[in-house]
Amino acid sequence: MEAVMPGVAHKLIQSHLVSGEMVPGAEIGLRIDQTLTQDATGTLVMLELEAMELDRARTQLSVQYVDHNLLQTDEKNADDHRFLRSACRRWGIWYSKAGNGVSHPTHMQRFGVPGTTMVGSDSHTPAAGSLGMLAIGVGGLEVAMAIAGQPLHLVMPEIWGVRLTGELPHWVSAKDVILEMLRRHGVSGGRGRIIEYHGPGLAGLTAMDRHVIANMGAELGATTTVFPADDAVRAFLRAQDREDAFTEIVADAGTTYDVDEEIDLSTLEPLIARPSSPGNVVPVREVVGEPIGQVVIGSSANPGLRDFAVAAAMVKDRQTHSGVSFDVNPTSRELLQDLTKMGATFDLISAGARIHQSGCMGCIGMGQAPASGSNSLRTMPRNFPGRSGAREDSVWLCSPETAAASALAGVITDPREWAATEDVTYPVLDLPERASVNTAMLEPPLDAAEAADVELVKGPNITALPEFDPLPERLEGPVLIKVGDDVSTDEISPAGARALPFRSNIPALAEFVFDQIDPDYTARARAQSGPHLVLAGDNYGQGSSREHAAIAPRYLGLRAVVAKSFARIHWQNLANFGILALELVDPADYDRVETDDVLAVEGLTTALAAGPELTVHNVTRDEDYPVRHRLSARQVEMVVAGGLIPVLRART
Amino acid sequence: MEAVMPGVAHKLIQSHLVSGEMVPGAEIGLRIDQTLTQDATGTLVMLELEAMELDRARTQLSVQYVDHNLLQTDEKNADDHRFLRSACRRWGIWYSKAGNGVSHPTHMQRFGVPGTTMVGSDSHTPAAGSLGMLAIGVGGLEVAMAIAGQPLHLVMPEIWGVRLTGELPHWVSAKDVILEMLRRHGVSGGRGRIIEYHGPGLAGLTAMDRHVIANMGAELGATTTVFPADDAVRAFLRAQDREDAFTEIVADAGTTYDVDEEIDLSTLEPLIARPSSPGNVVPVREVVGEPIGQVVIGSSANPGLRDFAVAAAMVKDRQTHSGVSFDVNPTSRELLQDLTKMGATFDLISAGARIHQSGCMGCIGMGQAPASGSNSLRTMPRNFPGRSGAREDSVWLCSPETAAASALAGVITDPREWAATEDVTYPVLDLPERASVNTAMLEPPLDAAEAADVELVKGPNITALPEFDPLPERLEGPVLIKVGDDVSTDEISPAGARALPFRSNIPALAEFVFDQIDPDYTARARAQSGPHLVLAGDNYGQGSSREHAAIAPRYLGLRAVVAKSFARIHWQNLANFGILALELVDPADYDRVETDDVLAVEGLTTALAAGPELTVHNVTRDEDYPVRHRLSARQVEMVVAGGLIPVLRART
Repeated sequence: MEAVMPGVAHKLIQSHLVSGEMVPGAEIGLRIDQTLTQDATGTLVMLELEAMELDRARTQLSVQYVDHNLLQTDEKNADDHRFLRSACRRWGIWYSKAGNGVSHPTHMQRFGVPGTTMVGSDSHTPAAGSLGMLAIGVGGLEVAMAIAGQPLHLVMPEIWGVRLTGELPHWVSAKDVILEMLRRHGVSGGRGRIIEYHGPGLAGLTAMDRHVIANMGAELGATTTVFPADDAVRAFLRAQDREDAFTEIVADAGTTYDVDEEIDLSTLEPLIARPSSPGNVVPVREVVGEPIGQVVIGSSANPGLRDFAVAAAMVKDRQTHSGVSFDVNPTSRELLQDLTKMGATFDLISAGARIHQSGCMGCIGMGQAPASGSNSLRTMPRNFPGRSGAREDSVWLCSPETAAASALAGVITDPREWAATEDVTYPVLDLPERASVNTAMLEPPLDAAEAADVELVKGPNITALPEFDPLPERLEGPVLIKVGDDVSTDEISPAGARALPFRSNIPALAEFVFDQIDPDYTARARAQSGPHLVLAGDNYGQGSSREHAAIAPRYLGLRAVVAKSFARIHWQNLANFGILALELVDPADYDRVETDDVLAVEGLTTALAAGPELTVHNVTRDEDYPVRHRLSARQVEMVVAGGLIPVLRART
Repeated sequence: MEAVMPGVAHKLIQSHLVSGEMVPGAEIGLRIDQTLTQDATGTLVMLELEAMELDRARTQLSVQYVDHNLLQTDEKNADDHRFLRSACRRWGIWYSKAGNGVSHPTHMQRFGVPGTTMVGSDSHTPAAGSLGMLAIGVGGLEVAMAIAGQPLHLVMPEIWGVRLTGELPHWVSAKDVILEMLRRHGVSGGRGRIIEYHGPGLAGLTAMDRHVIANMGAELGATTTVFPADDAVRAFLRAQDREDAFTEIVADAGTTYDVDEEIDLSTLEPLIARPSSPGNVVPVREVVGEPIGQVVIGSSANPGLRDFAVAAAMVKDRQTHSGVSFDVNPTSRELLQDLTKMGATFDLISAGARIHQSGCMGCIGMGQAPASGSNSLRTMPRNFPGRSGAREDSVWLCSPETAAASALAGVITDPREWAATEDVTYPVLDLPERASVNTAMLEPPLDAAEAADVELVKGPNITALPEFDPLPERLEGPVLIKVGDDVSTDEISPAGARALPFRSNIPALAEFVFDQIDPDYTARARAQSGPHLVLAGDNYGQGSSREHAAIAPRYLGLRAVVAKSFARIHWQNLANFGILALELVDPADYDRVETDDVLAVEGLTTALAAGPELTVHNVTRDEDYPVRHRLSARQVEMVVAGGLIPVLRART
C-alpha cells in the first residue's frame, strides 16, 4: 500500500472505516451517519425495515423525502405518502412532505454536515459531496441496512483528483463543468472512482455550484464526488442558519491522487448533451438553430437559487417563444420562497413560465413529456431514452443560461451569441444573504415511546415483498433478452407516470420490465416456467439506483445477467436480490450468444465460493465462455441464499 | 304568449333570435357571437371542423384554451397542444397556451363582452353570464357548427328570477350562495331554466363573485345563468384594461320571471357539499371535525384573486396541518402574477402550499387524487364519484374560507368558529385596482391568406372521427347496463389522467366507458355484434359537456338510451351522434326492465317523424312501455341519418 497524503475523500473514508484496507479494489466497510430516501425507492426501504423487524433507526439522522411521485393521477401516490409518513413516525425518521422539495438540495440545506457519511436510495445522493460529505447512492436494501446500523460494504475506489484552475467565463456555469467531464470521459469514465475536486478554481464555485457538479458525477458512473468543506461551505451553511454544523475539511498540502486531471475553467464554453445520453456532449455552438418545443428548468442537477435567478434575469421583460412550453420546476419550497421574495417568480411567470410544484417532476418522467419528435431542452441530469415519458423522445441537457436563451429564441441558442445579439451583459444577481429557512414541512422523529405504538398505514397497492428462493445448484435457462452497452435502469424498470405508482407493488411493477427495449419480455418471462438470463454489453444498469431494476426481473425469474461489465449500484442490487452478475472474460463472447440460447452454470455453490472464475455453458451451441463474478465471500453467501433478505430472515 | 317586461336573459335571447318564438318549450335558434373550447373537448371540435371542410371561423371571436390535459405523462398531451395550435392557426381561432390559464376566468378577463352570446364545449361556459353574456355549454359538435356560422338550436327555457337581498356575513362568500341554491334544489333543480339573478343584493357581489355563482349554476342542470352588466361589470372590465367593451344591460323595472325565488344573503352561513354530489349540501357546522387529508384551492368555481387572497390571508404566518396536503391551483397566469405581486404567493408557500401550474388540475382528475378513503376538501364545482382520480373517493366542495380554516385545523372547520377561537377578524383584502394584464400567451388568429396554408400537425394518437351509420328501421338489442339517477358524464366517459389523453382517439377512449360503474361494459359491448341499449334513471348525463360520453358508447354499438329523464347537454350530444334518447312515460316501467333484457323499437323512421310517442317492446318479458322522444323535425332527420356529421357530409 502506497503512502498517500490524505485528500478529502481519504479523510472521510479513514474516519468511518470499520473493516478492510483502503487499497483500491479491496472491500471496505464504512460506518454510515446519515441516510436519505425518496418516495419512489423509499416505500420498499420501509417494507424492508418491516421485514427486518427493526425497532428504531440507529443512524445519526435519516430523512425520507417525498419528491418523485407527486402527480397523484390516482390514489396510489397519496397512499404511498401516507404510508411513508407512518413509517417515519414508526422508526424515528424525519419526514419531508410533498411540496417541501427535492431531496438533494433540501438535504444539503437542512441536514448536510461536513465530515459525515451518507447513503441514499437515489443515485444523485453524491450531491451532498458538495459539503465535504462522503455520500453514496446505493440500492434501497443497503439504505435499510444502514438505517439498522449496519456498515456499508463497498470496493475501495480509486481517487480521481480533478484540479480546477481559472474562472468560469460569463454565460458558462457549473453545469458546463460537469458536462465537460462527461464530454471527456463518457458515462462510464468514473466507474470504480471517487472524484475529488481541488485547486484554485474552487474559489469561484459556491457550494450550490459544487452540488451541480457532484450531483451529475453520478452520470460518469463514479462511486461519488467530494469537494472540500471550505469557506464556500461555511458561507452556505451560514445562509441556512446552520453555521454551527460547519467543520473544515480540506486536502493536506501535497496530496496525491490515484488519477490526476485538470480543468482550466476559463477555457470552458457552453456545452450540451445531445439525445439520448448524458455522455453525448458537444459545444452548444455546434447545434445552434435546432428547433425546440420545450425548455425545462429545475431538478437536483441545477437546483440552486442562482440557477433559477439567472434564467429569470435573462427572460425578465421578454417573452419566451410561442412554440415553446417553458416549464419551471422549483426544487424546494425554500427556493420558491426566495425566488418569490426577490421578484424572480414574477419575472418568470411574466415571460410565460409554467411554474410547477416543487419536486422532481419531468426529471423522472412524472409529467412534462414533450410532444412526439420534438426537442426538449432541460437543465436535468439525464436524458436516457424514454425517461421523459415520451416514446422516442429527444431530450438535451444544458445549463440554465443555455436553456433560457433557447426558450426565448425557440431554437437551441448559445447564450453568448444571444447576449451579443441582444446586447445583454451577464446578469449580476442580487441573491439574499439568508435563505427563507422554513422547517414546518419537515416532521421530526417521534420519541421512542411514542414511535413504538405507531401503526403502518398501507393503501391497497402497498404489498409485501415477494419471497426469494435460494440459487439452484445448477442454473439453466434461456437468454430472454440481449441488450447493448450502457443500458440504464430506466430501461430495465422505467420511471415515469405509468410505472412509478407501482413502486410498492412488485407484481404489478414487473409488467413494465424492459418496456422501452422489448415490450414482450415480461410476457415471455411469465410464460417461462424456470429461471432465465439476460445478456448485456458494457456498463449494464447505469443511472438510477432503483433496486426495482433487480427485484422486478427477479420476480419474473431472472437469476443471472451475463455482461461485458456492470454499473456499480445495479451490480450491488443484483447481488442483494440473489441475481448472479457474471462478467465475460472475453468480451467477444458477447457476439457468440443470441436471444433464446440456453445457458447453464454448474455446481454453483462450490464454484462461487472457490474463486471468481466460472464457466458458462451455451447448451444451444455447445460452447463454453469463461466468466467471473466479483462477489466477496460475504456476498457469495448472500447470493446463494437468494439475496440479503433471506440471509437476514435466517438470522432472526 | 304572455307579455313580459324583458329581463337580462330575454334581452340577450331577443337580440340574437334567428328562429322560433320565445315561449318556454319551443325550439329557438340563436346567433352565436363567440365560442370557447378547451383541450379535452377541443381536439374533437377541430377534427369536426376538418370533417366539415371549414375554410375559416365565422364567429366574432373563437378561443381555444389549453387547461385540462396539462400533466403530460406521455407524449399525447403535448401532441394535442401542438395539434390545437396548428388548428387555431388554420381556422382563425385564438390560441391560449398551456400555462395561460383556465378557460372561464381567462375568457372573462380577456374576451367576455356584455350583450354577446357564446357557446362552449365545457359545461361551465355559463360562468361568462357574470358579465351579462348568454353563455351556454354544449357538445363539441355544436361548437363546431357555431364556429362555422350556424345558429344554436335549443328549447326556449323558463327564466328563473332569483332576487338577492341583504349582504353576505363575514366568512360567507359567493360559493355559499350557489351551494345554497344546490341545497334548496339539488342537481336537477335548474333543468330547462335560465337562472337570472337580480335585486339589491347584487351590489355586494363583484363580477368575479358572480362568476362563482354562474359557473356552478351548471351543477343545478340549468341551461345557463345570467347576471346584469352593471357597475360591477364595468369595474371589472376597467381593471382588465377593457372598459371599452362595456355595455350596460340590466332588467327593466317591473320585470317578471317564469319562476321566482329569493335569497337573503345576510341569512347564509358556510355550506359544504358532502361526497359525492354537488347537491348533497349541508351547513359546515353539521360536519365539523371530520378528518381530512387534502385541501385544494382553485378551479373555475373559485377562480378570482379574492378567492386565493382570502385563503392566503388566513394562512399567513400560520402552518397548515402536517397531515394535510394543501394544494393551490392558480387559475391563470394573470392571477398568479397578481397574487405574487401582492405577496400572497409567498404567504401560501410559507404556510405549506404546493403551488401547481395554472390550470384545471385536480378539478378534472388530472392529478391531485387523494389517498384511499381520505377526505378531500376542494373549492371546485364537482365531486362526482371517481372524478378526483381515486376510486371510492370522498370529495367535499366548499368556499375558500372553509377550505383554508380546515387546512389549518386538519379537520373540517367552520371558518366562523376558527376565527372566534383564533381571535381573527375577517380579512380586509388590498386587491390591486388593475390586474397584471399580459396577453403574450394568447396567440391571435392568422390572417386568412396565411391561415389557408397552415397544415394540421397530428401526433400518432390523433385519429379521424369514426364513421356512423344510419339508424336501422327496427332497432333491437339488449340492455347492456342499467344505471340509477343522476349518472354524470364523468361516470359514462371519465375525465382523469388515465382516460383524458385519449380524447382525440375514440377507439382507445371507448375502453373507459362506464369504467366507474361497470368495468365489464366495454368488453360486453365489444362481444355484442349488433346494437345495444342503456337503461337509466333521472337526469341521465348530468355534468360535463363532453360529447365523448355519446361518441364513445356509440362507437361500441349504443343506439338508444331509455331513461326517466335526461340532462340537457348530454341529450343533445346523444342526438348529435345518432343515439335515440327515449323518456319513459311511466317512470315505474324503469323497475320492470333488467340488464340483458332485449328491447325493440319498430318502424323507426316513420314513428319518429309521426310524433313524440313511441313504444318500446321488451322482447324478453313480452311487455310494452310507452316512451317519448323530444326531437324536433330537424333533429329527427339527424338521428335517423346517424347523427349530424352524416347530415353535414350529405350536404357537401
